[in-house]
Amino acid sequence: MPPAERIATFDQDGTLWVEHPMYSQVIYCLDRVPVVVKAKPELANVEPFNAEVKKWLAESRDPRWKRPYTKLTCLPMQEVLRYLRASGYKTYIVTGGGQDFVGVYAEQVYGIPPEQVVGTAGGTKYGYDKSGKPFLSKEPKLLLNDNNAGKPEGIHLMIGRRPYAAFGNSTGDRQMLEYTGAGDGARLMMLVLPDDAKREYAYGPAQGLPDSKVGTFTQAL
Amino acid sequence: MPPAERIATFDQDGTLWVEHPMYSQVIYCLDRVPVVVKAKPELANVEPFNAEVKKWLAESRDPRWKRPYTKLTCLPMQEVLRYLRASGYKTYIVTGGGQDFVGVYAEQVYGIPPEQVVGTAGGTKYGYDKSGKPFLSKEPKLLLNDNNAGKPEGIHLMIGRRPYAAFGNSTGDRQMLEYTGAGDGARLMMLVLPDDAKREYAYGPAQGLPDSKVGTFTQAL
Repeated sequence: MPPAERIATFDQDGTLWVEHPMYSQVIYCLDRVPVVVKAKPELANVEPFNAEVKKWLAESRDPRWKRPYTKLTCLPMQEVLRYLRASGYKTYIVTGGGQDFVGVYAEQVYGIPPEQVVGTAGGTKYGYDKSGKPFLSKEPKLLLNDNNAGKPEGIHLMIGRRPYAAFGNSTGDRQMLEYTGAGDGARLMMLVLPDDAKREYAYGPAQGLPDSKVGTFTQAL
Repeated sequence: MPPAERIATFDQDGTLWVEHPMYSQVIYCLDRVPVVVKAKPELANVEPFNAEVKKWLAESRDPRWKRPYTKLTCLPMQEVLRYLRASGYKTYIVTGGGQDFVGVYAEQVYGIPPEQVVGTAGGTKYGYDKSGKPFLSKEPKLLLNDNNAGKPEGIHLMIGRRPYAAFGNSTGDRQMLEYTGAGDGARLMMLVLPDDAKREYAYGPAQGLPDSKVGTFTQAL
């Protein structure tokens, strides 16, 4: 396919990094949001929000692995990212996670810049502080719920063309993979089945594993 | 600044191409939309819409210059685009025009791929046709009005970082330029004043020209 059209999209949770026992962003929310918004209402402002996410990522540790969440990525998928980029592909994350949240670390963790992160996104509002300096604040208005049908809708909104390759691991990725496959010519759609209980988590019930209730393989194959 | 942060944003109408006597997309709408939607309700489907825009752009001519609209770009601004890209910048269009409309021709006309076009955007809806093939249809729901305060809001939504350089020509670009200038360190904000009545249009009342009622220079400088 023409170099300009080499677009590949990746789900994040369970595809690029660990999603067990809970999505990392859920942990972030449980951990920090109530404390933070009460103490610092200015975190509705986009830039302090980003700084706070950075701080949390640097300090927090996964309870099982005792390592920062940003170190718990899937190495074979990191290789896929690098392989596709070496072949002229632009790699995108297309995640149900918050676009602003993932945008803070995606460059450092996956080599994917914030402008190539498509995620669940709320509105912002442009305004001025007391000194007249402009800033953006987060609005409680959902613009894109980037899961299920929201994934192809988000791809159209943020990328504006259909991927040639798409990678996911759960029912929330189904429509993204279908949409990718509906394009002309050869397309690659891949479902990741994490099956390494020792170094990550093993999802079932495929391969006779205990049903993890997460991932696409909820019926035995 | 770090290479990854080299982002430059450009208004389109009046900045990159001719906006007199009417925005080209307004002409497209007047010209085509009523005929087209009546005759072809399937144009709510994203892909036939794109094909129709391409056809219109190939066939229509500017009434004064007798040339396709896509040939009426501002050459010095094309040089700015190329200069910035040669210096490692990603160049974006940030336009009040329709994101899908501009995305159809931006690559061919400006060397800017659709994923680097931020524009006024409506929602889409993922569904299946009778044969089960997935497609996206346009919804009558405005997600982003990419003018005035909507420009920095759109930049945050679609790019996720603040530009180092921004170019515009009218009051609709004011907030984008302010937001760019409010970043740390050196930033470039530029207002274009078209003043060549012979080869394009001359905007006033700056430089004693007749008031064009378009562009930023509505008070004499």
